[in-house]
Amino acid sequence: QGILERLDAGEIVIGDGGFVFALEKRGYVKAGPWTPEATVEHPEAVRQLHREFLRAGSNVLQTFTFYASEDKLENRGNYVAEKISGQKVNEAACDIAREVANEGDALVAGGVSQTPSYLSCKDKTEVKAVFRKQLEVFMKKNVDFLIAEYFEHVEEAVWAVEVLKESGKPVAATMCIGPEGDMHGVSPGQCAVQLVKAGASIIGVNCHFDPDTTLKTVKLMKEGLQAAKLKAHLMSQPLAFHTPDCGKQGFIDLPEFPFGLEPRIATRWDIQRYARQAYDLGIRYIGGCCGFEPYHIRAIAEELAPERGFLPEASEKHGSWGNGLSMHTKPWVRARARKEYWQNLKPASGRPYCPSMSKPDGWGVTKGGKELMQQKEATSEQQLKELFQKQKI
Amino acid sequence: QGILERLDAGEIVIGDGGFVFALEKRGYVKAGPWTPEATVEHPEAVRQLHREFLRAGSNVLQTFTFYASEDKLENRGNYVAEKISGQKVNEAACDIAREVANEGDALVAGGVSQTPSYLSCKDKTEVKAVFRKQLEVFMKKNVDFLIAEYFEHVEEAVWAVEVLKESGKPVAATMCIGPEGDMHGVSPGQCAVQLVKAGASIIGVNCHFDPDTTLKTVKLMKEGLQAAKLKAHLMSQPLAFHTPDCGKQGFIDLPEFPFGLEPRIATRWDIQRYARQAYDLGIRYIGGCCGFEPYHIRAIAEELAPERGFLPEASEKHGSWGNGLSMHTKPWVRARARKEYWQNLKPASGRPYCPSMSKPDGWGVTKGGKELMQQKEATSEQQLKELFQKQKI
Amino acid sequence: QGILERLDAGEIVIGDGGFVFALEKRGYVKAGPWTPEATVEHPEAVRQLHREFLRAGSNVLQTFTFYASEDKLENRGNYVAEKISGQKVNEAACDIAREVANEGDALVAGGVSQTPSYLSCKDKTEVKAVFRKQLEVFMKKNVDFLIAEYFEHVEEAVWAVEVLKESGKPVAATMCIGPEGDMHGVSPGQCAVQLVKAGASIIGVNCHFDPDTTLKTVKLMKEGLQAAKLKAHLMSQPLAFHTPDCGKQGFIDLPEFPFGLEPRIATRWDIQRYARQAYDLGIRYIGGCCGFEPYHIRAIAEELAPERGFLPEASEKHGSWGNGLSMHTKPWVRARARKEYWQNLKPASGRPYCPSMSKPDGWGVTKGGKELMQQKEATSEQQLKELFQKQKI
Amino acid sequence: QGILERLDAGEIVIGDGGFVFALEKRGYVKAGPWTPEATVEHPEAVRQLHREFLRAGSNVLQTFTFYASEDKLENRGNYVAEKISGQKVNEAACDIAREVANEGDALVAGGVSQTPSYLSCKDKTEVKAVFRKQLEVFMKKNVDFLIAEYFEHVEEAVWAVEVLKESGKPVAATMCIGPEGDMHGVSPGQCAVQLVKAGASIIGVNCHFDPDTTLKTVKLMKEGLQAAKLKAHLMSQPLAFHTPDCGKQGFIDLPEFPFGLEPRIATRWDIQRYARQAYDLGIRYIGGCCGFEPYHIRAIAEELAPERGFLPEASEKHGSWGNGLSMHTKPWVRARARKEYWQNLKPASGRPYCPSMSKPDGWGVTKGGKELMQQKEATSEQQLKELFQKQKI
Repeated sequence: QGILERLDAGEIVIGDGGFVFALEKRGYVKAGPWTPEATVEHPEAVRQLHREFLRAGSNVLQTFTFYASEDKLENRGNYVAEKISGQKVNEAACDIAREVANEGDALVAGGVSQTPSYLSCKDKTEVKAVFRKQLEVFMKKNVDFLIAEYFEHVEEAVWAVEVLKESGKPVAATMCIGPEGDMHGVSPGQCAVQLVKAGASIIGVNCHFDPDTTLKTVKLMKEGLQAAKLKAHLMSQPLAFHTPDCGKQGFIDLPEFPFGLEPRIATRWDIQRYARQAYDLGIRYIGGCCGFEPYHIRAIAEELAPERGFLPEASEKHGSWGNGLSMHTKPWVRARARKEYWQNLKPASGRPYCPSMSKPDGWGVTKGGKELMQQKEATSEQQLKELFQKQKI
Repeated sequence: QGILERLDAGEIVIGDGGFVFALEKRGYVKAGPWTPEATVEHPEAVRQLHREFLRAGSNVLQTFTFYASEDKLENRGNYVAEKISGQKVNEAACDIAREVANEGDALVAGGVSQTPSYLSCKDKTEVKAVFRKQLEVFMKKNVDFLIAEYFEHVEEAVWAVEVLKESGKPVAATMCIGPEGDMHGVSPGQCAVQLVKAGASIIGVNCHFDPDTTLKTVKLMKEGLQAAKLKAHLMSQPLAFHTPDCGKQGFIDLPEFPFGLEPRIATRWDIQRYARQAYDLGIRYIGGCCGFEPYHIRAIAEELAPERGFLPEASEKHGSWGNGLSMHTKPWVRARARKEYWQNLKPASGRPYCPSMSKPDGWGVTKGGKELMQQKEATSEQQLKELFQKQKI
Repeated sequence: QGILERLDAGEIVIGDGGFVFALEKRGYVKAGPWTPEATVEHPEAVRQLHREFLRAGSNVLQTFTFYASEDKLENRGNYVAEKISGQKVNEAACDIAREVANEGDALVAGGVSQTPSYLSCKDKTEVKAVFRKQLEVFMKKNVDFLIAEYFEHVEEAVWAVEVLKESGKPVAATMCIGPEGDMHGVSPGQCAVQLVKAGASIIGVNCHFDPDTTLKTVKLMKEGLQAAKLKAHLMSQPLAFHTPDCGKQGFIDLPEFPFGLEPRIATRWDIQRYARQAYDLGIRYIGGCCGFEPYHIRAIAEELAPERGFLPEASEKHGSWGNGLSMHTKPWVRARARKEYWQNLKPASGRPYCPSMSKPDGWGVTKGGKELMQQKEATSEQQLKELFQKQKI
Repeated sequence: QGILERLDAGEIVIGDGGFVFALEKRGYVKAGPWTPEATVEHPEAVRQLHREFLRAGSNVLQTFTFYASEDKLENRGNYVAEKISGQKVNEAACDIAREVANEGDALVAGGVSQTPSYLSCKDKTEVKAVFRKQLEVFMKKNVDFLIAEYFEHVEEAVWAVEVLKESGKPVAATMCIGPEGDMHGVSPGQCAVQLVKAGASIIGVNCHFDPDTTLKTVKLMKEGLQAAKLKAHLMSQPLAFHTPDCGKQGFIDLPEFPFGLEPRIATRWDIQRYARQAYDLGIRYIGGCCGFEPYHIRAIAEELAPERGFLPEASEKHGSWGNGLSMHTKPWVRARARKEYWQNLKPASGRPYCPSMSKPDGWGVTKGGKELMQQKEATSEQQLKELFQKQKI
């Protein structure tokens, strides 16, 4: 059954997790460029990660083609041996995903994401040509459906959807935005409306923000569609990092991005809460993005097991709500083998010299006037000093 | 070259990371039992993790035989299909480790750890028989050297070393203790002396505590050996979790163990600091335990690259001190591509409702008198109430 | 010169700080009732606190008549000796304030606050009668102007202003609300409009929220007035506690209220920042409420000394931006004698087992359904357990 | 009854709180010099603070003569009008303390503290002459007993005790040290022994550290006396700031000292716990130092009211364990009117951008080698860069 048949029937579809972050930690992706040449260089590593997500409960395996557009690979990927063409990267990604999907009953989704061409102000035709090149591979390899994801500007996302729709396959589209909307100031509700009008059957949000913020944004999208009397399935693939302190551009502006995000990593219990809240909001395509490891996906599958009627394969190696601890020798560890314990735990960071929130970078630049303000303060400090002297204080 | 030749020549030997925690998150190990039947059930997953550590710089691949003694597998492993014998688990572990070791030039170390037999007070002969059974597999598979690790009682560790020494192969021995010593109150210095006298050529600490605490403990071991005029190589394989708030029994007593430890995960920069400090303390076998992922091992290899003269393979996908960010479009993210930035970063947890330290569980039980104290408080509260009433306040 | 002459001339008027919190810590006010019988019982303590605010720079001394309406004193004050009538409390408050005001050149403001009569749904006539009784004392004692403060409902605040206007004296009115508006859902902008229409010449916010939140609320009031083409002077008297985690009803719902607020106390540098921001927003009557001690008021006076042209008397015992430390023997303490140091300090709590934010109480009650939610979770937990059993996981 | 009669009879004696910090916030003491000229300049302010401590339960009023030695007043106090001689300051301090002590039944203690003369290496005779000058005033004014407090070096403390003993009055001596001992490395146990041998009848610790650390130090003193078979009454007057992160020299080295300590201020419940623990340790002279406000002293008196049989006057305005809140209208605030609530509260800081612990300043200087370490790091960074280039990574 295809993605739309499943969603139309009211099924919950579980997505997969974040490849670039997981493979960076495993040693196969370089932070900065974030390009997916590993599909050619180290297919066994990509295959294994797909397999772990499948076992954890993913119903969709996305081809590892993030930032695999030709312009991106050329632009940043010049540290990669020249012989690896974009076509090879995309084809290998499709082959690996299909191979693992066949180990279970998952669907394969071909994915495109935002391009350097758009950011460097190329026109619609040029940008669409970039997407079309990836689409050709996806058609040749016959993926099950298509996803346009990680767009900061709805204009480019719409172009991507229009290209992907040429295929006749179902199209999902997610943006990496928060409640404030896209980088041109288009609100989440308006983004949703434009994406559906462009042909997307599934819309939502991925990356850049934590589950809480992402669900807020999807809620705004849902309300925008309702107001416009449009219909679409909803989808969420947030970060597995806590980011309550993000600004408009999300976790990239946090000082911890990308090499100090560890203390923000979500626990499996955080993700179970997210899965429940997403479900309650009416979202039926529920997955993750950067930071989501296989055990986070399993947490979604376990939380929604009552609704779905089954557990994923990897739950063989996991007890519900920590009940595997009931065999522990220490009574106080056995006492942790219950839902109430983990649900209420406020986990400590072990970092007493660190704060709990950060100020995002970049505000001084975007808001300007930081220097001006400092100048002003300097002035009044000088004046104050004179006063103190004058009054001999 | 063997392990002792390398260490005797002054080389740095990099260990590998923690298998049970990494594979639990990947869906192949069950928390609670923590047994390694995955070597038989899912060899591809174990093989891939070995490979990642090898690429990250590990010079030693430990067979995934933690808690693989017969008594342990019987004791807790009854959720595993009965047909998987301890012998099969241990043999598969050796085969996989050797296969991957041959992809580079790593050594294979066969490992034993503490047993339920000892904890249930079986005698020396019985406990040694358990170790000997595993040793037979290691001899048959011809591992390069042996490690006795994760012992809370030096008495059992000594027995393990004595058995392993029967093989004629070099033996390393690490205990999972902190500066307060083993569970019978033997100090780290005394533990070191006993292990060396029993025949260990390499001694140190693994698991249970964070790098800072582990290095303190190894320092005490070193001083104990010096006082006894004994010599041995030093080894450290700490947690990749921050645990300044641990009690004597380490991270197991922390309320976050084992499913809420995320905010405590060390960054790669924390591990670089650890590698430098371990080196400065004279430790030359430097690795990790639970929580160590491939990128943490790579951090050791990168920190000590100037001393070693080369970088690991996985550094292809990593810039020194975040310098891969120098290609970023945002100027404030580019400004993070330098050592000073990451070295001084105090990463936020994104969890403003959580504390930075926890009180370990179990203290009430071990220290007793908690109930007594509460009773006393209740009494004086009652008295106080009466006073307030008497004075009409 | 009267209050309006000063404000009309563009002068900055500095208010005083919070009496009930300061005197509770000194031992003269009881938390819970919070009534001001100390004016009769211990006039020397009230006098001394007034004097400290005067020395710190206050241009206005408010009579210590908070919660001194007859109905309040009767309602809660029954632990106070019966012989102290409301009239005596109010008269003594006026006498003490005037006595100290004459030691400098401060104005005396008579203050009324919200009444139990309103909260228990008495009608306009009855509530106004309560205010009028206090007003009679203020007229007899000839205070310089009047303040209606600490109102959660603008309706009652309007009634208070109407009564106070009968006196012919200038009237200021502040509400203890945040950006969400009053307890009946009236927005800050609408509150401002109604207060000015009722006759208030100065309007703003006091208590319940920290400086940041309070300034946001005053900004909304200012915008409300502008939209309605009305004019009034602006006034802010926030808490000296950090309360970013407050709900609609402010710090009373925080779990720390009122006996565990210490870690939230603002530093003098926090208050200097507040004073500057208030000034920049166009507020010219700048003071404080609960938590403000004399040194916080001095911080306002020092921050705005360049604009005002003079320092308060108490600055004799204070160096600008910590410059008194320049005499210290330790070089690293001397290095703190500068603005940049204190402005950028992120002060630690010394409480590693405590969080940085709290969940306000009461949400479960107001939002309802907490129990319902728990029931639902219990259900799905039961279902999950059955699934695990069925699949023998 | 004198101090020794009371202590010998097993009575609890409650000390007073910290004058310099409290009066700095009230506007009468300058941070940096910290000298007590307020006794002459503003006697009403000093008198009021004494009175508040008396009402809170203090059995001893210390003359406000901290840093009032001639050499100190000359050394740092030159911002004070020259006409105020040391003698005048000390005499006024005695008069005010006696006046207030007579309002209840408190004792007056004359106090001396460490001198610039000692720190600038003057000899024993000269230093003793400084103490003797203050003692002459105390004798003339006939204080009840004497306290030598706030000494970082036991040698100077011993000299002070020897001088004070010349008076024939009972002498108490406290040092501002932690468990590591005095600045010359003398252990707390040895300090205690020397002080008792010099003639002190009461010994202990004041200032520089929080209650927990202070009690640890007093325990070491107690053990030192027991080992030496000496007897003395024990006394503790710690900070009312949480300082788990202090180094050897206490809170002065914390980056928050002295103008950013607010988030560290102890709650009344923290102090009740301290009072109980001090009592359980056998301490019978229990008071406070910097940070202790009247309500903290009241907390000691309330915690120990069952043992003492009475409450202090200021408890008229305080309910036991927050029971004054039982009259509140909101049910969730009423629910706070109980011991268990306040005893278990983990108060939030409201400061999510701040850490919970700080690194003390000065470590780089005392430990040296900081620069050396940085140099070394720079080297290996350079080497690393070359390696990355050589391997073209």
